[in-house]
Amino acid sequence: MKIILIGFGTVGQGLVQILRDKRADLKARYGFEPQVVAVVTGRRGSLYSPDGLNLDALLSDFAAYPDQPAVLERGWSAERIIRESHADVLVEASPSNLETGQPALNLCELALQTGKHVVLANKGPVAVAYNDLISFAQKAKRQVLFEGTVMAGTPSIRLAMQALQGCTITSARGILNGTTNYMLTQMESGKPYAEALAEAQALGYAEADPTADVEGWDAAGKARILAQALFGRKFLALDMHVQGISHLTPADIDAAKAAGERWKLIAQVTPQGASVQPRRIPVSHPLAGVSGTTNAVTYTTDLLGDVTLIGAGAGKLQTGFALLSDLLAIHQLG
Amino acid sequence: MKIILIGFGTVGQGLVQILRDKRADLKARYGFEPQVVAVVTGRRGSLYSPDGLNLDALLSDFAAYPDQPAVLERGWSAERIIRESHADVLVEASPSNLETGQPALNLCELALQTGKHVVLANKGPVAVAYNDLISFAQKAKRQVLFEGTVMAGTPSIRLAMQALQGCTITSARGILNGTTNYMLTQMESGKPYAEALAEAQALGYAEADPTADVEGWDAAGKARILAQALFGRKFLALDMHVQGISHLTPADIDAAKAAGERWKLIAQVTPQGASVQPRRIPVSHPLAGVSGTTNAVTYTTDLLGDVTLIGAGAGKLQTGFALLSDLLAIHQLG
Repeated sequence: MKIILIGFGTVGQGLVQILRDKRADLKARYGFEPQVVAVVTGRRGSLYSPDGLNLDALLSDFAAYPDQPAVLERGWSAERIIRESHADVLVEASPSNLETGQPALNLCELALQTGKHVVLANKGPVAVAYNDLISFAQKAKRQVLFEGTVMAGTPSIRLAMQALQGCTITSARGILNGTTNYMLTQMESGKPYAEALAEAQALGYAEADPTADVEGWDAAGKARILAQALFGRKFLALDMHVQGISHLTPADIDAAKAAGERWKLIAQVTPQGASVQPRRIPVSHPLAGVSGTTNAVTYTTDLLGDVTLIGAGAGKLQTGFALLSDLLAIHQLG
Repeated sequence: MKIILIGFGTVGQGLVQILRDKRADLKARYGFEPQVVAVVTGRRGSLYSPDGLNLDALLSDFAAYPDQPAVLERGWSAERIIRESHADVLVEASPSNLETGQPALNLCELALQTGKHVVLANKGPVAVAYNDLISFAQKAKRQVLFEGTVMAGTPSIRLAMQALQGCTITSARGILNGTTNYMLTQMESGKPYAEALAEAQALGYAEADPTADVEGWDAAGKARILAQALFGRKFLALDMHVQGISHLTPADIDAAKAAGERWKLIAQVTPQGASVQPRRIPVSHPLAGVSGTTNAVTYTTDLLGDVTLIGAGAGKLQTGFALLSDLLAIHQLG
């Protein structure tokens, strides 16, 4: 399997690190021998070698990647690499644009048109154009997989779409943003909002501009993905009720605590609609026990009742694993 | 797909009910059109019709199953049905014998020898002879699937063996027995052990002889299955530390509560060993929030950290779904 990797930030590097460190294991257990033939970065140009790039050299210093004995092209555009390389899979791990899905969406469509499977950690194309991607993929007889877009590598998508096959899922409720869950956990231990935010920023959980996390937009993007994957329903962010946690006061936190409840930023998705808002959850509910940056989702089903999955929602290896698991699924289909 | 069903208690009836009620849905969504060609009961004889039995008639009154226009054989032994029917899958849903795996184990081996896939809710053969079954199956190029043996249809096996592929699982810890978890939840609310047991018996959660549940042997059987499926390790029940909940006193319960902890009957499995014993779990741990008859398992992995799955651990449709999900997996492979 020859892979083009778009985006070489934390997630892309996580995948490459896993492929390097698990090379022998992946070959022995699954007969899986992937090659990364191209990496396209946002600011540091691109590298393309039809015989596969050296993963150690990629990880140690991308800018100083050595001239190889074999063919090495520097600076090709993503489009040119997708058109002219003979790769099997495009991995999209560049930053998400939840409004347009671009530029990743065009690259994904080009990849499908040129016969490549597509694996995404980038939420944008899936949230914005799920139906288009799936219908392109069906025409091209290729896969579009996106485990990494919701709860990192914790298999929320694979659970819903594969392991629960035969059930009808009627709703999904989840804690899909780790930053705000970390902040709420801190606020419960007595810190005011501003202090919890500063701490999340210091730890790298929240960005300098925390709006996407704290106002619920990141969770809303994930809710839109679940709505499309589970129910085939496309909800626009503008039509959703989306509220974050920035208005919660110490008095709100205390009132919940006194009632045996906890505030959680809950994304809720049914065939009728999707929303993100802080909700008071009884401490006895599985979602109430999810603390720190951990994420969780509860699927309500006809045959099994509630099924809850709890695990990492972010992280280098955690999201890198999501990409690996999609690549393995493609390998095993082929 | 032509199915032989051994065992027509709650679980077997649950499967037949699902197949009846979801017939149109399973055909439309998955192109899956199974036929139950034989049902073998413990005390009410057997029915075999090569053209498929009528599911409504099976469910309404097995003993009064009408003579069909087509061929109907009554009273054939399970062995004869396995040998002489042209079925594709044996579904084993008779009561578990965790010491010998019999008589189910012989039937499973006969089914594999005669070219059938095997799907089990019966824990016995998997706990006792996992390696033999898998090696028979590999030789016969057939599947042995057993989602229903641990946590009913909550996909604990599929999560570990498929969705987490690419990770290395280093341990599993779980609440794998719903009866004792229900009793512990009642004991936390102030009831003594004897009263909690009587209540569990009245509700049908515990048997008249509750030993297998309350002394930990049911959970130990599931731990042995996980040890083999996850780590390829066969532990004998005699070599395991297995302790139930019957010795826990109100004072024990209170002491845990005072320390911010809860007693849970925890099955723990690593490549080095397996055990079942009551443990005090901090209320902040995901397993502590699992109450009533709900089950849960936490897999610790190298790339994702802890992944926890919470859901039903028993029930007619819940375990029936486990069988359906294995049958669907076989359908989709073929």
